[in-house]
Formats: sequence, C-alpha cells, structure tokens
Amino acid sequence: MRLHPVVIACAISLASISSFAAEPEAPKYKSAQEIIDAAPADAWRTLDPANTLYMEVEGGRVIIELAPEFAPAHVANIRTLAHGKFWDGLSIYRSQDNFVVQFGDPNAGEATAKSQGTAKAKLPAEFARKSDGLVFSALPDKDGWAPQVGFVSGFPAARDPATGQAWLTHCYGMLGAGRGAEPDSSNGAELYVVSGQSPRQLDRNITTVGRVVSGMELLSVIPRGPQPMGFYEKPELRTPIKSIRLASDVPEAERTPLQLLRTDSPAFADATEARRNRRDGWYVQPAGHIDVCNVPLPVRTPKE
Amino acid sequence: MRLHPVVIACAISLASISSFAAEPEAPKYKSAQEIIDAAPADAWRTLDPANTLYMEVEGGRVIIELAPEFAPAHVANIRTLAHGKFWDGLSIYRSQDNFVVQFGDPNAGEATAKSQGTAKAKLPAEFARKSDGLVFSALPDKDGWAPQVGFVSGFPAARDPATGQAWLTHCYGMLGAGRGAEPDSSNGAELYVVSGQSPRQLDRNITTVGRVVSGMELLSVIPRGPQPMGFYEKPELRTPIKSIRLASDVPEAERTPLQLLRTDSPAFADATEARRNRRDGWYVQPAGHIDVCNVPLPVRTPKE
Repeated sequence: MRLHPVVIACAISLASISSFAAEPEAPKYKSAQEIIDAAPADAWRTLDPANTLYMEVEGGRVIIELAPEFAPAHVANIRTLAHGKFWDGLSIYRSQDNFVVQFGDPNAGEATAKSQGTAKAKLPAEFARKSDGLVFSALPDKDGWAPQVGFVSGFPAARDPATGQAWLTHCYGMLGAGRGAEPDSSNGAELYVVSGQSPRQLDRNITTVGRVVSGMELLSVIPRGPQPMGFYEKPELRTPIKSIRLASDVPEAERTPLQLLRTDSPAFADATEARRNRRDGWYVQPAGHIDVCNVPLPVRTPKE
Repeated sequence: MRLHPVVIACAISLASISSFAAEPEAPKYKSAQEIIDAAPADAWRTLDPANTLYMEVEGGRVIIELAPEFAPAHVANIRTLAHGKFWDGLSIYRSQDNFVVQFGDPNAGEATAKSQGTAKAKLPAEFARKSDGLVFSALPDKDGWAPQVGFVSGFPAARDPATGQAWLTHCYGMLGAGRGAEPDSSNGAELYVVSGQSPRQLDRNITTVGRVVSGMELLSVIPRGPQPMGFYEKPELRTPIKSIRLASDVPEAERTPLQLLRTDSPAFADATEARRNRRDGWYVQPAGHIDVCNVPLPVRTPKE
C-alpha cells in the first residue's frame, strides 16, 4: 500500500558508493525534515499566550496565533471579545469547499445578535501596513500576486518595494476578519479561515488577523454548507463553538505547549531550499521553485 | 450574518448614473458568474461517458473526467480496472490534511492484494507529453512553477516552449496515479486526489490522469488520518468505496447529465478576466493576476 505521491526517505547513500573508490565524500543531501529535526534550540520560538487563541470544538482545540504587527486594532478587539467570552456558544456557520470556513454570530447585524460587550463596533480597515520595521525574510521565488513574498514573524507575507507596503497573504490556515461592502465594516467578531487553494485575490481587500497553527484538520473537514457560499441556514447543521479563549486567560496547566520554527532562522531557509529543489530518490524533476503558500511552517511540542 | 470575504453582487449600475447626465453609457461590468450564465450553448460540452468515472461512496457520487490526451496508457488501464469492478468494496485509505486523499487497495503489493483482472501490472511513466497537437489556451499570467500555464480540454496544464513538453498541473481536484520509488511503478489502481494547496512540486514527477468535476466535497471532508501522511492503518476508519464505474458501463437513466464550460471558449476567457480584475463593489484592490489553480472550471446540470 506504500504507493503514494510523496517523497519516501530512501536513504540512498551516494557517499557510501563513492567511498568505495576512495573519492571524497559528497555532502549528504538533507531533507527538509532532517534539517528541521537538527535545528538548534534558538531556531524555535514559543507562542505568546497574549497573542494566542484556543478555540474549543467537539473534536478538540484549534490554536490560532494573532498578528498584531499587521492588524493591531483588530487583534486588540479580538482579545476583548475572547476575554468577554463572546464566541462561547456561537458557531461555525459556513464551510465553502475549497475556500473558507467562517465562524462567529450567525445573527450578526440582526436584532437577535449577541452583545459584543466592551468590544468596539467599528475599526479601521487594516489591509496593509508600512513594511518599515518588519523583519521580512524574502523568498527568492517569483510570485504572480505580489512583487515580493516571504515571511514575517511566522506569517506568510508580501511586500511592494514601490509603495513601501506589506501585507499578509491568504494561504491555507490564515485567519481573516469578514466584512460587508464597506472596507471598514469588520471588527473581528466574524472570522474566517482559509481552507482551500490560497485565495490570494483577497490580499489587501480584507483584514487578515492571524493563522491557525494547530488543529486545522478540525476545521478543514467540516461538511460543506449549501452552494454557492456554504452558509448553513439550518442552525442544527452548524458546528458549535464551546469557547474561544486567549491562552493568557487559561490556567497554565491547561495551555498547550507549542514551539514554532522561526521563519527568520537559517534552518527555516535551509528546509525551504530542500523543498524547492528536492534531491532525494523519489523526485525526478526538482521544481526549482516554491510558492509562499506551499512552505510548511513547522510546529512541535517541546520535549519534557 | 452577511459579513463575508467574498464578493457580493452589488449591481451598482454606473450606466444608470451617467445616463442621468445624458452621457454615453459605460459598458456594464459583468461578473464571472454573469458571463458564464450568458455563455452560448456551444461554449458548453458534455462529458464523454467513456472517459468519465462514477465513484459511489456513502455520501453520493464523485464524478471524474479522465485525461487520455495526457496519460493514454493509464487511462486505458483505469478503464479496464473500472470495467472489471476492481475498486468495488475497496476504500479511501488515506486523507492527509492540505494535501491528498488516496484510494484503491490498502493491501496493494501484499499477498492479500485484490486481483486486478486483465489490467496491466506495469505501465510507462506518463509525466509529460509533447505539446504538439494540443489545443492549449494559455493564460497571460506568470507562474513560478512553469514557463507557461493554461488549459487543455478542460484541464489545468503547463507547457515549456523550450522543450516542447506539456503536462497537467496539480491543482485542487486533480487525480493522479500513486507510485513508489520507481517512476514507472504506477498502473492506475492506486489513485489520489489533490485536496489542499496545489502541490505543484509533484508536476512532472508523477502521472496525472484526470480531475474530479463534481462531488469533490465528498472527498475533501474525509477525516484526516494519522500524521504525518494520513494513512488509516485501522480498516474501520477507511471510507468504503461502493463502486467505481465508467459512465459508459452505467445505464443511461442512471447517468448524471453534466456540462462543462469549454476552456477554449471566449466565455471562459472573459470569466477568467473578470476574476483577474474584479471591478464590482466589494473589491478595492483588483489583483491583476490569477493563478492557474484559482480558475474555477464551471460545471452545470443542463436544463430539461
């Protein structure tokens, strides 16, 4: 049953063949996983509990990292909403195949909408920001949607040197703030997660606020709602949200310890290069390219 | 609840505003959907029953179009396997988040493997072909993975003018033939469907044989198997396949009538342009670009 479309570590040792003839040993190719496994401790970072959301659903915990560098007003409001237990008892009310899942208050904007407590009803649009002040680890790879792509603080991002702007890119697992017709009509109460092919046309058209770093598979398998947009009008088909909490509001013993590989570390760059040009036994045609949305962002549970 | 990250048809009529001052009417912007809805009858094609698979699972029917132009030997073998009811009673035994679902015989390669009847055990690798003889509708958009991308007979594809080669691109819903370490180790019995961000690094490394044209949402929601690769070792967790049949082996009354928008039609080009540069009320920043894997391939049920 091991026929599959991904690389199998074949451990073909060219070095051992050439050493038979007493030639110098070729440097052994390291796969992305081997590079990540060998990354030094300082290549890893720990999630900041004040910027981490725990979304509890029946299947388990979805862990989200917020992006205050890109959407400070939205992130502040999301913190207020989580602290006020706004989402508890609300639901995932949309799942559109190859696009997004969306959650919050299915009655938003109606008389029966849930109170948002002390959260702000209105925020500025935060579609992009100045790239000054960001540590932008650029990919050498070309991108059709933006002049330059790369990573900032663990998030996939883009920038335009001509305008000095930077923004987060709509890759799988990215979290955004739903809005209506007006650009400034989001306040972070209604959120969506990208669950399909990167809808990069949304970049700079909506405020992105973070990323799912763990538990994405709990959201991606939610049955799709009716076409075309996947909204569940029947309440019984929505997925209940038990709670969404800031990790800093959760007792330490109940927090999930997670570490993420720093996207400005040499190990991350090396692992990305190993994926850009795969030289293990399975691939016969290395791509010579990688898309910003195809770069995995490694997460691990630290050893005891 | 209508806060969401997709375009709402706002029907803002610039024409009606300007006509108030008796100016010439501006051509009305048509959305991709409006263009598709207005496409003439000859922009649509009907699936060829001899190149169509019906995969029956508990939730319904998944419809697959085969691509004999790109993988003639594999498609012929798949026809033989379907005609011989090879997949009936087998299963979807892998679901890896943001990558693929895979199906066939979980015991392939073992003593307990199911007989493949008169199908061939060994086929040539069909990773790419000569681009001569194909109607290639090229996109003007740049692509990081290939010199040129576009569509051939309804399939997303790429070509390299320097080598004269063309191949299918690994977009959402594409069907490929799983293989082991050897390039020619696939025979079409073990198949995978792309269910995540387009894994274009697989292009030209594996044989692609078709595309899911309907029912993808039945595959994309299958619970993910254990990490890292999503194979279900426990048989009870696999998704049973009731049957896979060539549509031409199914009585006409049981066939699903479907039409697909021709990818070489003006309507398809116009709809793609409407998505490349969205000019409705919701978008504030048209992308000016579209990725070959972000172009929807419209399917409809013909009217009575």
